[in-house]
This record gives sequence, structure tokens and C-alpha cells, in this order.
Amino acid sequence: MAQRFSVAYWLAAADEREAYARALDICVEQTVEIPRDIVPVGYVEDEILGRLEALLPGSDERGGFLADISYSEDDVGGDFLQLLNIVFGNSSIKTGTRVEAIQLSDGLRALCPGPRFGAAGLRARTGISSGPLIMSAIKPVGLSTGELANLAHKFALGGMHLIKDDHGLVDQPTSPYAERLAACVAAVEEANDKTGYRCAYVPNITGSASQIFERAFMAREAGAGAVMLAPSLVGFDVSRSLAADPDFGLPVVSHPTFAGANIITPTTGFSHRFFFGTLQRLMGVDAVVFPNFGGRFGFSREECLSILQGCTEDLGGPKPIFPAPGGGMTFERIPDMQRAYGDHVIYLIGGALLREREMVAACQALRAGIAGAATASGSGTPAY
Amino acid sequence: MAQRFSVAYWLAAADEREAYARALDICVEQTVEIPRDIVPVGYVEDEILGRLEALLPGSDERGGFLADISYSEDDVGGDFLQLLNIVFGNSSIKTGTRVEAIQLSDGLRALCPGPRFGAAGLRARTGISSGPLIMSAIKPVGLSTGELANLAHKFALGGMHLIKDDHGLVDQPTSPYAERLAACVAAVEEANDKTGYRCAYVPNITGSASQIFERAFMAREAGAGAVMLAPSLVGFDVSRSLAADPDFGLPVVSHPTFAGANIITPTTGFSHRFFFGTLQRLMGVDAVVFPNFGGRFGFSREECLSILQGCTEDLGGPKPIFPAPGGGMTFERIPDMQRAYGDHVIYLIGGALLREREMVAACQALRAGIAGAATASGSGTPAY
Repeated sequence: MAQRFSVAYWLAAADEREAYARALDICVEQTVEIPRDIVPVGYVEDEILGRLEALLPGSDERGGFLADISYSEDDVGGDFLQLLNIVFGNSSIKTGTRVEAIQLSDGLRALCPGPRFGAAGLRARTGISSGPLIMSAIKPVGLSTGELANLAHKFALGGMHLIKDDHGLVDQPTSPYAERLAACVAAVEEANDKTGYRCAYVPNITGSASQIFERAFMAREAGAGAVMLAPSLVGFDVSRSLAADPDFGLPVVSHPTFAGANIITPTTGFSHRFFFGTLQRLMGVDAVVFPNFGGRFGFSREECLSILQGCTEDLGGPKPIFPAPGGGMTFERIPDMQRAYGDHVIYLIGGALLREREMVAACQALRAGIAGAATASGSGTPAY
Repeated sequence: MAQRFSVAYWLAAADEREAYARALDICVEQTVEIPRDIVPVGYVEDEILGRLEALLPGSDERGGFLADISYSEDDVGGDFLQLLNIVFGNSSIKTGTRVEAIQLSDGLRALCPGPRFGAAGLRARTGISSGPLIMSAIKPVGLSTGELANLAHKFALGGMHLIKDDHGLVDQPTSPYAERLAACVAAVEEANDKTGYRCAYVPNITGSASQIFERAFMAREAGAGAVMLAPSLVGFDVSRSLAADPDFGLPVVSHPTFAGANIITPTTGFSHRFFFGTLQRLMGVDAVVFPNFGGRFGFSREECLSILQGCTEDLGGPKPIFPAPGGGMTFERIPDMQRAYGDHVIYLIGGALLREREMVAACQALRAGIAGAATASGSGTPAY
């Protein structure tokens, strides 16, 4: 018999009887997808069919129940998309059903070795051994390559650790991908030569499905420090494939665009901890962008802290990664974020820096302020 | 100035003032993603920034408002994923925001020429010029290639028009992809030789991101009649790329697995008409699988009829496609479905056939029953 992994689902149900029936439905829906009474006896029933391992009442304000359902590695067939299909495929379309967490098996750890770099690797590459990192973004779409590269240059001079493309920058005529890539790498390198820092430019990887890998490798060839992509658009295996490819060898930053309602309703979709934590690590992502609490999106402080947990908790293999909260960040919010995230964080600060007239000085002040806050809070070198 | 396309959003808002503010936020969020007061004047503000074209009170039980927002083709940069990013990227993570419809521009029609075959092309390939088509599925995961091919053979003998893989069939050791592909193509061809029909085998295309196209072309080389894929897992550009590739030349069936909460809540995500209709056609899909009303998922009859509308309404270019409702279909439901969908439908019937002892005879009865219902309802040759 193959090893089994298990998924914890939250289920809406009026009572245990209903919850039990719903949980058994998931065992069928996620695996054999035929009526229970015609599941072939033997291997299919014993091995492939999902198995309800535990059912407990929910412990938060949602009520409901938590069902622990195990699946066989045989059902995965070495296919990461099929793993996601088993975890939540058809059941994702049912109301009152949410993926809370996954318990990995050795086979899944082999299929998903996780990020190549992780938080520690990103620290090593940027030369920042303690305290939060800072990432800014060049934007908006519509600026010329020269204007965008100039922004990147100033951000790098100001001591930002990572400078990413806005996720809307693709291959527009105003700034074609190859041109922007070359210009921004050069602009950041030039700044690094002056500062002695190791700032990384992080281009946005998109395009037609057959271009994605080509663009990612172009970034590597050109000297980018990492790449960014949006799994909900490009597909959920791209980052895993890139991270697993020894010839690629760049960190991957993931962006939440198009992730949609799956991550904003408490009774459907995915828990924040799973979607922005566990799943990202299984996908080989090194840093995950998500909407910060108190910004212009609706994530709560508690939800963001659960993401920090998902990014750092022991998974028995996949490395811890960086949460990169962003979206409406301002200088004033740094102390509160410091209390929430400690040192295990990449601050993503975009618009707030762009409005500064003296951008380099503003970046330097931001960098000093964050380093000071980290020292003041007494948080030492991270554990990873 | 480039042409503009527009997206209709439903917005939750207490009054027009709030709706107006929310709509203007979307104009910024989906394009420049920087505070409104620092948007560069000139090209960026005039061209790239989203533009609120109309704001009207909602007309259904949700209340709220409908905002019509236009975007420049310049922002798309010839990138389909960027189009989706503009349509709903970050705003997909906001509550009370839903994409209802899109108004295409000529540039988008050039980027998305749509399905290669469409409903009429699928009819031509299967030789069924009128009435509903029938698709069944070989399953469950865990059966051997021989068992699955035997099922495909019987379905084809019984006159099913399309026979798809279960979407959980990937490359499991019990039935590796290449082996299953060869065996099922042969099994269906052998049956076609006996019946004179043109039944098509439709393998499930998945794998690592770099394998997807290889698997799709393997299907073509082996003689499959179409391919199936799940856009929410493999990414949203794969089917568009395949449909646009003249060397590929097979119809594409899309499967809704992992589409999640985006398609089940009335106040977030996408309207059924957009997600299962318009979007599929922009992606080059020829037939779209979705959960039928009255089955084990929660779609209403009205929602399913809106999908039929989305699959067939005039988009000024992309061909009409087939809705393929499935999920808990039974023989008894055929008359009701016939009243709902008319002839413009592929009935997806899986489990109900698998429980029949005399499967070939059951398929033949089903085919005859559906043809009879089509004749009885007086519905003639479809308009496409």
C-alpha cells in the first residue's frame, strides 16, 4: 500500500450526521467521482477512495465541522496539478467547503521539494542576515523603459533589497519585456556598484503559455535577481517546475492577482495559512506577496499572522519562506507591522515611495527606520 | 489613441456615492495601482488609467450597482494573462466585487480569435448535424488501462459522441498517459469501424508545466479526437495557445475543477455567463464542462441558462461553443434538460452509465432517447 496524505476540510453542516455525509461525499468526489455503491472493490475502494480519518466540531465562530480525509499517493501519479485536483478540485465548487490544511507524506515531499532558496537563501543572496527585507515596485504601466529603469536605479540607490516589476508590466510597447529587463538589471547593478549593496531586480514573468519558461530563463541570462509570477494566472505548476530545475536557479516571488474569491471567504476556498503559506512552499515559491491587514484589502491581522505561520512552520522538508505583505503600505505603519511580523518579513512598499520627491533619501530613511525598529524590538537573527 | 474595451462589474455599495468611489478605485487598482493623485499626467492618465463609463443601480435581488469601466488595449500588451489581470486581477481579492460581462474591442478579438472549431466544428467532426451530443467519461482512477479502454470501447459501441478521461486520470502507474492514450484511441477506433460513427476520445491533458504542450501534441499524434484540460490548474493561456496553433488542430474541452469560490458566490468572482461562456470562448475552448442544475452542485437552472447564453451569444468574432453540463446526470433528467438547453448542448453522463450492466445497450437507449426528445421538442437544426 502506498503512503497516504491528508487534508483538513472545514464543512458547513447543521449537525454531525450531515457533516459525516458531506465528508463521505468529499471522499468520493475528490477521487473516484462515481456513485459510492459502484466503486470497484479491491484496489480502487481500498487504496484510491478517500478515507475519512476524523470528524470534529469546528472550534471557531464559523461553527461547522472539521473533517480529516486521507488520500493515497497512488492517486497523485507524480503530478502536482493532480495533487491540487485531489485536495480541492471539484469540491472547490461546493459551498460551505474550505481547505484548512494539509498533512504531507514522504511521497508528496519528494514531488514538492519546495523552494530552492527559501527565506534563508534570500537573505544570503541579498546579504541581509537579520531584520526585515524591503521590496519596492516600479510602476505604473505606461511609463517608458527609461522611466522605469530610472525608478529602479533610485530604489536601489536608496537601499531597497528587492525591486519588482508591477505585476501589470508585461510586454507593452511602452516598455517591452526584453528591453525593460536589460535596462533595469543595468540600472540596479550600477546602483549596487555605488552602494555596495546586493539589490535584486525581479521582473514579472508572463506571456503566452509557451513563452513563460523562455521569459524566466531570459531573466536569468540577463542577470535578474529573482522572478515574479502569478500562479492563479500562469498555472500552479510553473513555479514548482522552475524551482525544481537546477539550470534555473533564481528565487521565485509569487503574486496574488486573480486568486479571487478563493481567498476572501471564510467558508469556501482556502485558509490563508494554506493558500499563502503551505501551497506556496509546495509550489517552490521563496516569497509570497499578499494584501496586508489595514491596507486597501480586507485581510485581518489574524489572517496575516496565519500566513506568517504557514510560511514558516515545519513541513518536514520544504524550507520556510518570506511573507511579503503589501497593498497600501505607508511609512507610518512600519511599527505596527514590526510588532506583527517581527523580522520574518519582506515589506512591500510601492505607491508610498513613488510620491516622495526625494526618492533616494526616502528609501534610505525607510531602510534605516526599519533596521532601527528591528533593533528596538530586540528581535535577533531568525531561526532558519 | 488605442481602442478601449470595457468590463461590467457588480459592486456592493450602500449608495451611489460609495459605488462611485469603489468604481474609481477599480479604475486605479486594475491599471496603474498607485494613488490617484500621483498618476502621471498625459499618456498614463489619459490612456492607461481605467475610465468609469457608466454607473447604474443593480437590477436584481443583490441590489448594489453596475459599473462599466473601460480600459485601453495598450495596457494589454498582447498578453492574454494581462488581459485577465486587467479584467479582475487584484480586484478579485476584494469582497463585493464581481465581473458580470466584457465588451470586446477589435484588438481583443485579434488577441483572442476564439475556438478553432466551436459548436459547428464539433458537429462536423462527430458527424452529428442536429440534436444534442452525448459525452461520457471513463473512470475511476485506479482502473487499469485495459479496463479503461474497455469502457471506452463500450461507450463508443453504444453511440456516445465523445468519450473523455475522468479529470483525475493523469499518469498514474495503474494507467500511464501514453499507454492509456494509445489503448483508448484504438478501442474507440475499433468501435467506430463497427458502428460507422465518428466517436472521439478526449484525453485529459495535465502534467508539469513544461509537459502540457507535449502531452497535447502526443494526443494529436496518437489520433485523439479532442483534448480536455482544466484552465484553473494548468493556467488560463494554455487552451488559447493550443487553439491558436494551426499545427495543433484539435478541439479543446475545458473542465471546471479547482475553479473554486470564484464561480459560486453571487457577490464575488465571475458571473456564470462570463466564466463558463465568454471567458471559455476567449480561451479558445470548444466545449465547456460545468455542474448542471439539480445535480450534486449548487448551480441554479437560471445560472445554467446564462451559461448557455454566454456560450452562444454574438461576440463579434469568437465562435459559439457547446455547454456540457454534467455532475450527477441521470436518464430521468433528460426531458427537463432538453427543455432547458434545447439542441445546443453536450450531455455529460458519467456515473449513471457506469452502473448499467448492459452498458452498450444502455448507451444505445440513451442515444435514441435523446434523439427522440430532440425530435419531439420540434427543435430543428441549430443556427450556427
